[in-house]
Amino acid sequence: MTHVDPQTIEPFGIQFDLIDGVMCKPEKHIIRNAAEMVGYYADDAALRRLIASHGNPIHYETFESPVPEQRGHVRFCISKLHPGLVGEECFMTKGHYHKLPDTAEIYLCLRGRGLMMMKLADGNCQWQEFLPGRLVYVPPYWAHRSVNTGDEPLISLCIYPGDAGHDYGNIQSDGFPKRVFRRNGHVLVE
Amino acid sequence: MTHVDPQTIEPFGIQFDLIDGVMCKPEKHIIRNAAEMVGYYADDAALRRLIASHGNPIHYETFESPVPEQRGHVRFCISKLHPGLVGEECFMTKGHYHKLPDTAEIYLCLRGRGLMMMKLADGNCQWQEFLPGRLVYVPPYWAHRSVNTGDEPLISLCIYPGDAGHDYGNIQSDGFPKRVFRRNGHVLVE
Repeated sequence: MTHVDPQTIEPFGIQFDLIDGVMCKPEKHIIRNAAEMVGYYADDAALRRLIASHGNPIHYETFESPVPEQRGHVRFCISKLHPGLVGEECFMTKGHYHKLPDTAEIYLCLRGRGLMMMKLADGNCQWQEFLPGRLVYVPPYWAHRSVNTGDEPLISLCIYPGDAGHDYGNIQSDGFPKRVFRRNGHVLVE
Repeated sequence: MTHVDPQTIEPFGIQFDLIDGVMCKPEKHIIRNAAEMVGYYADDAALRRLIASHGNPIHYETFESPVPEQRGHVRFCISKLHPGLVGEECFMTKGHYHKLPDTAEIYLCLRGRGLMMMKLADGNCQWQEFLPGRLVYVPPYWAHRSVNTGDEPLISLCIYPGDAGHDYGNIQSDGFPKRVFRRNGHVLVE
């Protein structure tokens, strides 16, 4: 491993509304529309109907910070996952490993209800509950995906090593071992 | 640099009260009493009077997380700095560099009012305001110290690379280039 000194930046402050889950003046705003989720849900036809009937709505968004993507830095963003169902399956993010697989990530839930689904490459699958004020620790090596089980946006502050990077690995083809459904008001992991 | 795989731990969740700034069930609770601050304030006699008259009260506390102190992990803790004055100087933490000096730290202020004082080894000194919801980014190489300028505890969620470590360096002998005072209700950095 070659050591590269982290880029020098000045100290800064950035304001959040911790109740509403808003980062004021984000550097970058990334939008994932429903059409980008084709292939991820069990009921693909239901997703296509949703896209057709709602004009390819926003599925989830991230609000990014001005921190270099480099070792030594600590990056942060807001993840906002909209509520809804694809058939009976709860809206979710694609999920990702880290490009440096041995790096962890912290999710501090600010608003909404949901689950963090996590899996290891060997198939081990675990999940943790999201509710406001709950911090979920995703250890090194665990792929992770947020799932919104509620009726309002699921908003988390995500914090990770600057050089962690994203790796979608086998997620689009293999998914996670468990899916999350809502039937008759009950949340089911199956 | 030798690469060591980070210790394997299971995913977990931990609850915070983001309004009161409380970590539920911390792994470890560390207390710094006023007597440990001898030598840090401009008016040492005032500190000794405070210790004598108040029975060496708690000055600041940290509530620690069960995350390994290793590269790849992301550690977090709550820092709680009590309000008060030593003479006219606002209560503050000792301050520290990181043992790995090229690692950053994030402070998310949950409660109270204050300043994050920061310095580089070359004497450059900057500060950022703390108020609820404000995230202060301490870049790599900057020593940092919290200062409570208000009347209630200053509470922050601190997040940093697992292997960052603490280094008090020259802080006890040299302090920071600026001190923070409260005179007639005004906060002064001088």
